[in-house]
Amino acid sequence: MIVVMKPGASKECIQHVIDLVHDYGLKDHPIYGTDQTVIACIGDKRAVDKGAIENAPMVEKVMPILAPYKMASLEVKKEISQICIGPNQTPIGGTKIGIIAGPCSVESREQILTTANAIKDAGCIGLRGGAYKPRTSPYSFQGLGLEGLKILAEARQQTELAIITEVIGLEQVESVAEYSDVLQIGARNMQHYPLLEAVGKTNKPVLLKRGMSATLDEFLLAAEYIINAGNPNVILCERGIRTYEGYVRNTLALAAIPALRERTHLPIVIDPSHGTGHAYMVPSMCLAAVAAGADGLIIECHPDPEHAASDGAQSITPKIMAELMVKLRRVAEAVDREL
Amino acid sequence: MIVVMKPGASKECIQHVIDLVHDYGLKDHPIYGTDQTVIACIGDKRAVDKGAIENAPMVEKVMPILAPYKMASLEVKKEISQICIGPNQTPIGGTKIGIIAGPCSVESREQILTTANAIKDAGCIGLRGGAYKPRTSPYSFQGLGLEGLKILAEARQQTELAIITEVIGLEQVESVAEYSDVLQIGARNMQHYPLLEAVGKTNKPVLLKRGMSATLDEFLLAAEYIINAGNPNVILCERGIRTYEGYVRNTLALAAIPALRERTHLPIVIDPSHGTGHAYMVPSMCLAAVAAGADGLIIECHPDPEHAASDGAQSITPKIMAELMVKLRRVAEAVDREL
Amino acid sequence: MIVVMKPGASKECIQHVIDLVHDYGLKDHPIYGTDQTVIACIGDKRAVDKGAIENAPMVEKVMPILAPYKMASLEVKKEISQICIGPNQTPIGGTKIGIIAGPCSVESREQILTTANAIKDAGCIGLRGGAYKPRTSPYSFQGLGLEGLKILAEARQQTELAIITEVIGLEQVESVAEYSDVLQIGARNMQHYPLLEAVGKTNKPVLLKRGMSATLDEFLLAAEYIINAGNPNVILCERGIRTYEGYVRNTLALAAIPALRERTHLPIVIDPSHGTGHAYMVPSMCLAAVAAGADGLIIECHPDPEHAASDGAQSITPKIMAELMVKLRRVAEAVDREL
Amino acid sequence: MIVVMKPGASKECIQHVIDLVHDYGLKDHPIYGTDQTVIACIGDKRAVDKGAIENAPMVEKVMPILAPYKMASLEVKKEISQICIGPNQTPIGGTKIGIIAGPCSVESREQILTTANAIKDAGCIGLRGGAYKPRTSPYSFQGLGLEGLKILAEARQQTELAIITEVIGLEQVESVAEYSDVLQIGARNMQHYPLLEAVGKTNKPVLLKRGMSATLDEFLLAAEYIINAGNPNVILCERGIRTYEGYVRNTLALAAIPALRERTHLPIVIDPSHGTGHAYMVPSMCLAAVAAGADGLIIECHPDPEHAASDGAQSITPKIMAELMVKLRRVAEAVDREL
Repeated sequence: MIVVMKPGASKECIQHVIDLVHDYGLKDHPIYGTDQTVIACIGDKRAVDKGAIENAPMVEKVMPILAPYKMASLEVKKEISQICIGPNQTPIGGTKIGIIAGPCSVESREQILTTANAIKDAGCIGLRGGAYKPRTSPYSFQGLGLEGLKILAEARQQTELAIITEVIGLEQVESVAEYSDVLQIGARNMQHYPLLEAVGKTNKPVLLKRGMSATLDEFLLAAEYIINAGNPNVILCERGIRTYEGYVRNTLALAAIPALRERTHLPIVIDPSHGTGHAYMVPSMCLAAVAAGADGLIIECHPDPEHAASDGAQSITPKIMAELMVKLRRVAEAVDREL
Repeated sequence: MIVVMKPGASKECIQHVIDLVHDYGLKDHPIYGTDQTVIACIGDKRAVDKGAIENAPMVEKVMPILAPYKMASLEVKKEISQICIGPNQTPIGGTKIGIIAGPCSVESREQILTTANAIKDAGCIGLRGGAYKPRTSPYSFQGLGLEGLKILAEARQQTELAIITEVIGLEQVESVAEYSDVLQIGARNMQHYPLLEAVGKTNKPVLLKRGMSATLDEFLLAAEYIINAGNPNVILCERGIRTYEGYVRNTLALAAIPALRERTHLPIVIDPSHGTGHAYMVPSMCLAAVAAGADGLIIECHPDPEHAASDGAQSITPKIMAELMVKLRRVAEAVDREL
Repeated sequence: MIVVMKPGASKECIQHVIDLVHDYGLKDHPIYGTDQTVIACIGDKRAVDKGAIENAPMVEKVMPILAPYKMASLEVKKEISQICIGPNQTPIGGTKIGIIAGPCSVESREQILTTANAIKDAGCIGLRGGAYKPRTSPYSFQGLGLEGLKILAEARQQTELAIITEVIGLEQVESVAEYSDVLQIGARNMQHYPLLEAVGKTNKPVLLKRGMSATLDEFLLAAEYIINAGNPNVILCERGIRTYEGYVRNTLALAAIPALRERTHLPIVIDPSHGTGHAYMVPSMCLAAVAAGADGLIIECHPDPEHAASDGAQSITPKIMAELMVKLRRVAEAVDREL
Repeated sequence: MIVVMKPGASKECIQHVIDLVHDYGLKDHPIYGTDQTVIACIGDKRAVDKGAIENAPMVEKVMPILAPYKMASLEVKKEISQICIGPNQTPIGGTKIGIIAGPCSVESREQILTTANAIKDAGCIGLRGGAYKPRTSPYSFQGLGLEGLKILAEARQQTELAIITEVIGLEQVESVAEYSDVLQIGARNMQHYPLLEAVGKTNKPVLLKRGMSATLDEFLLAAEYIINAGNPNVILCERGIRTYEGYVRNTLALAAIPALRERTHLPIVIDPSHGTGHAYMVPSMCLAAVAAGADGLIIECHPDPEHAASDGAQSITPKIMAELMVKLRRVAEAVDREL
């Protein structure tokens, strides 16, 4: 942590900050520059609220140095984590790129089985589908609940696909963990800490979506909550961020792939569906994500998007999905990976 | 809802969309323009997922017309709601502007009682303070929990201030509702729907903070969840949005005041502390908020910000608070209101 | 400038950076922390490209300390600058708050004279109006050019209002400087450096609008270009920033007022018209800006907004303007200022 | 254009808007819905300021239908434009992907010739380098000017690479057009309309960078200015947008590739250097851009980034560039294109 004093800070102000630094159990190391004095603070600063020092007189700013997360960081674990999911324990995070697909919502047994079989044939390893839906409006379709979970479990039995489904509240953690293979934490819940701790106490892998306007630090700290609670199997999912851009639902920030790879050992999956909001953009963003180094993709796929209960605009059909898989395979090979 | 067809859409494509509109139980009303055809859809469209239609061939975009919320809207209730809080049932939402202050976290009995007495003397009507803290890092101070609630209740007994405190998980709704007067839903939980429904089933007013990058529609739909669950006493709180600006923690969007006033009857409170992140900016933003028509303010105030467990940088002292109240009174009078 | 090394950086890497720091004529001051080494660099760093050092092996980041502007800063000049404008040399930047109003575009002699007389009566000190219009579309109205300038000059003669008008290209600097009292640099041109240098060589005050997504550092550096070219009379104008918010044209960042006041001696004017995009929001944002400490306002006002050639949605009528002035006077007095 | 009336709008208000629509030379087509009335307007609306109608009483909003650009649109020209650049008239916009590289600034003859030869050997088709630099600070290196242009021309003679260099002001258009093959309009100047018109009057292709926070409509309208002035040879360049993200200089919006392809026939080039700000992210973003369908890349490459006069942090070395080209070739082939 570096405390930057304003130009012209008096000796008394500087001494006051040094005393404050000591109050926090840190060692001070002042540097008297030509225009300004800065005080480097040495010691473990993760628990210190930097804001407190910022409020001292003549402090211009306090700049943290240390990454605020530990267990999610590359310092603690240098090799990329492989997280195995589903009945076949397919690894996410190695040479193979795992493709997950499926509808936004579980709407019916037929819809799910049709989709599951089609994506299985195309080479996907996982089936996504929401049984509990966090919907912006209380008047929108809210999901089939437990019935939806059972339909997903049936699809797994038929196809051996791993099941990924969202858990939106504490009271569902147990049942979702019973029926599914991967617990999804949605973007809206990325900072719902009681839920992070609850999934951290299960033994199921967690797919953690980045919050709509989360920083990478906040994202990795959310992962840290889960790991800290006992569950190291966290898959990070970039799904686009909210920006001023109106031609997309979200701006897909693919540079998060190299940026996260520089910071964390956790596998990185891209969601090009929420990341764009438009079906016609999904194939090119899938290809881009694989070329950029993603460890997996999670794609919305629906047999009849025009009648989908949710996210119809961004869902591709199983036919488009199958064609896309062929192209993905070629791009994966071009970057020395495989599907 | 207006469906805009791409230029050059064939008759078949247009008919296909018209059929789809009928599938959704809406009446169609096509308009053939010089360049493009648009199809106006008449009927109740709140439950239709516009995305589904967007996926039909040659559809350029689907534009909703109707506001997606009902009970929060001015159409349902024309006069501004007055919501009475605390032991004295002080109204928020009338001529009087309610000022709430207090520390980010409840840290100790002494800290709270000192603050409570000071802000009471200055003319505040409510005391804020977190007993359960949603912290970005698992290594930060997480709050005193139940003990914190009891300290707040003691402060109420001494001062008759209304107590506002955050509820971060379902399991605390009952105890927070028991000890406090207003249940706060934090920005991170604005779209945690199970929690919105749970506080919607209590009989305590709710202070709902706008999510860090929520639109006004999303904000009002979150309020709608609470009202829809049975609790009409929702106070909206603008607390800044996340933007590219680095000199503030958040960008305080004061234009939300006239914009919300145009859309909803719910009272509007401004949080200039989270809305800026810096104590030195708080007074001018408080004055601005009152001038702009806010129904209340919620301000972080700490007797010793340099040693605060959280949010020290944005907390003002009771002394600054008292000076600010004098100025706020003058500005309130200038816009025909009072504290 | 502080260079932060990655955890585990070798002695060689650290020495390499120290050598690089010397190459740039700076003194090094390494601090060996528990997890990471940082190297404080002492000397004049304004001319060093921090990016160059960031590219050295094992450098995590380079953090600048010094504000990059000088002449615009409070370090160079502690008291707020008063800049006098127009035939009566009305000061902007003192106790008095200067209100400027007028249409987006000069459309006709009658429109301008009507507006000028009305706003003069209401107590405004300046008339704005564009003769040269930077329009997003080549098919939009582009302004009356020289004829517009002459109409503005006639309005000045009739009313003694100061004339503020935009200069959008180098070739107009001379003629705009001849006919108007204040040269406006629009948001789109905030970083058009040849134009900044050109207005910096005139003897007319400059109203510099903040770019649509400029940081405060970029904004003050743009002012620095003008001052550096010889013209110290720069008035800063916050006019809203681009964010994800859809209910406004721009998000008016009023916290820029205290933030700029902390950094610069230049006067600060607020544009609530571009800052919101909607006439109904303009009055409350004007009141808020004055309460927050603005030194002036620049407001779009048109006698017939429904037929305005540009910016009709955000223009208020002279009647609303007159009513607003009464309220502004009261709020100004409440914060110990006057119109 | 669709005018949406507020719920409860009276007949008089509706008639007033219809009259206004007629004033603008449009035909009205009102639709009376269950909650609200909307008025579709038929005719050429590109020249109508929608804001004017928004100001009429009881109008909720005015929604444009028509894309505001014409000549840049796919409606006017269905096949992708091929734009040939440099001594060998290498096409940008066909099966072949054109890779352009070079330093941010021209610093010396040796630096440019070294870089030019290296990137030529690696398979690049163009050399970028700034002779005139738009720098955020007046104290930063401002470029070598005419001398820089001459060095670039010498590099062309040696290598037959196409020269791309920025023109920042009207007074340089002529000399830059004389020495270079492609005129670059930088992000800061995307809406400097006099400059757009000036380059529109030359016969040199223009590489137009998207403004830092420009929408796609604004971007294509800037292209429209150039085409409208007589120069159809516009290459669009996405270079990242400003968002809240702090780990990048800009957020590279690769979904702009499919989005622009849906709207315009102009070729699309990606700048991953400004688009991320960090050299270590550049290779993966280059691969992603090619996989996503980019027609070209423009990459900052410097023989000694640690001593670069500008943009050192985001410059890759010729060695990294050569390795990257091998990978790019493989990904290009995987999507049926070639370098």
